[in-house]
Amino acid sequence: MSEETKLSHIDASNRASMVDVSGKSTTIRIATAEAQVRVNEAVAAQFDGTELVSKKGPVFQTAILAGVMGAKQTSSLIPLCHPLPLDSVKIDITFADRTATVRCTAKTTGKTGVEMEALTGASVAALTLYDMCKAVDPGITISQVRLLEKSGGKSDYQA
Amino acid sequence: MSEETKLSHIDASNRASMVDVSGKSTTIRIATAEAQVRVNEAVAAQFDGTELVSKKGPVFQTAILAGVMGAKQTSSLIPLCHPLPLDSVKIDITFADRTATVRCTAKTTGKTGVEMEALTGASVAALTLYDMCKAVDPGITISQVRLLEKSGGKSDYQA
Amino acid sequence: MSEETKLSHIDASNRASMVDVSGKSTTIRIATAEAQVRVNEAVAAQFDGTELVSKKGPVFQTAILAGVMGAKQTSSLIPLCHPLPLDSVKIDITFADRTATVRCTAKTTGKTGVEMEALTGASVAALTLYDMCKAVDPGITISQVRLLEKSGGKSDYQA
Amino acid sequence: MSEETKLSHIDASNRASMVDVSGKSTTIRIATAEAQVRVNEAVAAQFDGTELVSKKGPVFQTAILAGVMGAKQTSSLIPLCHPLPLDSVKIDITFADRTATVRCTAKTTGKTGVEMEALTGASVAALTLYDMCKAVDPGITISQVRLLEKSGGKSDYQA
Amino acid sequence: MSEETKLSHIDASNRASMVDVSGKSTTIRIATAEAQVRVNEAVAAQFDGTELVSKKGPVFQTAILAGVMGAKQTSSLIPLCHPLPLDSVKIDITFADRTATVRCTAKTTGKTGVEMEALTGASVAALTLYDMCKAVDPGITISQVRLLEKSGGKSDYQA
Amino acid sequence: MSEETKLSHIDASNRASMVDVSGKSTTIRIATAEAQVRVNEAVAAQFDGTELVSKKGPVFQTAILAGVMGAKQTSSLIPLCHPLPLDSVKIDITFADRTATVRCTAKTTGKTGVEMEALTGASVAALTLYDMCKAVDPGITISQVRLLEKSGGKSDYQA
Repeated sequence: MSEETKLSHIDASNRASMVDVSGKSTTIRIATAEAQVRVNEAVAAQFDGTELVSKKGPVFQTAILAGVMGAKQTSSLIPLCHPLPLDSVKIDITFADRTATVRCTAKTTGKTGVEMEALTGASVAALTLYDMCKAVDPGITISQVRLLEKSGGKSDYQA
Repeated sequence: MSEETKLSHIDASNRASMVDVSGKSTTIRIATAEAQVRVNEAVAAQFDGTELVSKKGPVFQTAILAGVMGAKQTSSLIPLCHPLPLDSVKIDITFADRTATVRCTAKTTGKTGVEMEALTGASVAALTLYDMCKAVDPGITISQVRLLEKSGGKSDYQA
Repeated sequence: MSEETKLSHIDASNRASMVDVSGKSTTIRIATAEAQVRVNEAVAAQFDGTELVSKKGPVFQTAILAGVMGAKQTSSLIPLCHPLPLDSVKIDITFADRTATVRCTAKTTGKTGVEMEALTGASVAALTLYDMCKAVDPGITISQVRLLEKSGGKSDYQA
Repeated sequence: MSEETKLSHIDASNRASMVDVSGKSTTIRIATAEAQVRVNEAVAAQFDGTELVSKKGPVFQTAILAGVMGAKQTSSLIPLCHPLPLDSVKIDITFADRTATVRCTAKTTGKTGVEMEALTGASVAALTLYDMCKAVDPGITISQVRLLEKSGGKSDYQA
Repeated sequence: MSEETKLSHIDASNRASMVDVSGKSTTIRIATAEAQVRVNEAVAAQFDGTELVSKKGPVFQTAILAGVMGAKQTSSLIPLCHPLPLDSVKIDITFADRTATVRCTAKTTGKTGVEMEALTGASVAALTLYDMCKAVDPGITISQVRLLEKSGGKSDYQA
Repeated sequence: MSEETKLSHIDASNRASMVDVSGKSTTIRIATAEAQVRVNEAVAAQFDGTELVSKKGPVFQTAILAGVMGAKQTSSLIPLCHPLPLDSVKIDITFADRTATVRCTAKTTGKTGVEMEALTGASVAALTLYDMCKAVDPGITISQVRLLEKSGGKSDYQA
């Protein structure tokens, strides 16, 4: 099998293994991920109006903070992720058509990419939206959790 | 607004707040959640064949363990979740049609439900599948993260 | 020395030691602690006006969430604290005379008190206020971190 | 409002946000913070005499270790703090006039300051002193938690 | 294979799995584990004399606290361990014949045993002894990490 | 006493203290540690045969992942260890004569060695083997936990 199509975390003896990045160069690496959270009409009604007078404010603030803090826990959660310092984690949430769209951008100056930090940040923010709204709609569904783009490593990516 | 449709984590002054469960009764509470992970043909090809000779074995084992450990970190990740002991966390992964379906069931004997534990376990397992396979397919998408059922509390739920 | 005036965490051979609570009864235990955060005029000016249009909103929301999450980490931070489930953590912040007053109430149904959870929650919320405002006033001072009251154990306390 | 007086963690849309430090230079950054812990006569009596024969030894050792370990958890506790490696954390405690004075100095070679690490280390050490002595004096009060000095960044600070 | 000789954490389909303890009864469960740390003459010389004037004091105090705190992290470290409250963790260290013997006793009132907490506490204390003394003797060896006894569950054990 | 034989973590006033590494140079540092896990015949019988059809596969996979994740928690577990990014953690387990030999190699590009990360990774993997097999053999003993070699710092070491 060609180098490009190998699973990087499975070694020759079919065992899970962290990638050795000691030979990689230190660059600024950025990744952005997304998650979509679909709520019912009852939740959407609570988010109606401007952020200042709706429930959207505290719900989204809580999700944003949880996402930022979750991104910082990535290497504790994902077994083969490298622990690394982070220069920035930024989370935005927009709401339209009963769907909250969470975007998380992570940056590091390091030897390995931060896709997992961006994806973990977006996922934890989305799970927090679920937690904050589940009393009204336990059927909330999170979808489209995916990498939008990354840059700074050997190969860039654009969804 | 009626009691049933209030966001439980937003208090009267519009601030985020943990629910006080000191008056709730201690019961066995169970919740099951799901996440679907859609991979491309190149990843699917690596999972082909029986688990013993494909890459599926170590990839799925890693995701299962990450999900179990992630479920145990739920109250550290989700700001307003209660820390509680867990009686069991179980994760299963099946694979068909280029889609890995993760199911996580959490159990506690406690005063509050374990939906968030089940959802967090399923999400972390799904994120770990992404991490293990991203070298082959960075476009992997996680969808249908949702609660399938819960029981043991004031109101049961079935998706 | 009488039993009442002994340091509970120092054993007979002068070594640090966790208290054995296996023989204590399980009761609802509540504790409330406070911390005061003194800011300069420039910070106070940013908090001026109603919460909806001042910076106070996101700053206080962040501190409240950090305090709740910090309270949940108490047994990881304070070496001889018992890990225990929590029924509730509640944080309120009021602001007057350039001073933010943080109050944290913690509840458990357990064998040992939650003073340290209340104090840790108040302290982490106060530290977060510092972090959020330090660009404007690095001289912010946290004072009066203390237990206000506790109940539910062998001996109640009122400051 | 001028750049100098803006709250760095609140963005243009009034939301909590981590500062992006990717453009900052890597320098040795040092910060020292203090906390004062006021105890009653009964506690002070136990600390009387040399450290070798008083309770002061194990109490202070425990607080020092808790403070060092707490400083290392800063980015997990303070929502918008950057995770970063630490070159050193040092904690000293002196005792006079019924007051334990905790000083914590943190150092990093990094892109952002370590005020929060110093303040968190001092606070956790102070909270641990409370925990170790609360059986004798539940009215212990922590005050004067503040930054004493920092250097190595864009602007130095001296209290 | 008979029930008694099955690996409890491997399920019928040969996958790692947490044991479901929801049907077990809540009892006081105690476990004691040991670890032995063998040092060279140079380290032993530093421990010579009474604890008050030798290096043994701060080295052992640090190891004891690390062991207690490590025991509290057991369910975060051991993938299939249940998170549970702890009633007590106690660590003692004795030194003779160039060997420090660490004993850790853990107690819970819960549905599952605390062998892993006792073993993890003993191991972390032993690793901390290594860390504290490695500048003098990097060849320090930890041995005889084992369960001494446990009680309170379905079957007691005595080494 | 000569510089070489001092305990680096005990300062002049006999208190535990983190070493200040701010003046050290950033180099690639590698350390390898070992742990041996001795099991009884009943456990060994379950490991018999090739990994694909024995219980060895999931047991060893779980231990490997736990060890990698444990190594990443080193600075949270060992009080005076520096938090640092890791370039790689690799764990191998071999089995012969009723003894599983765990080897853990850790790498960083940093200012201080990674002996403790290697030793912690090996220990957590060994403890996980114990946990996975304790239902069959609670008498499993972990021995020979030691540093095999380290390089990249001021002085290399070879066991």
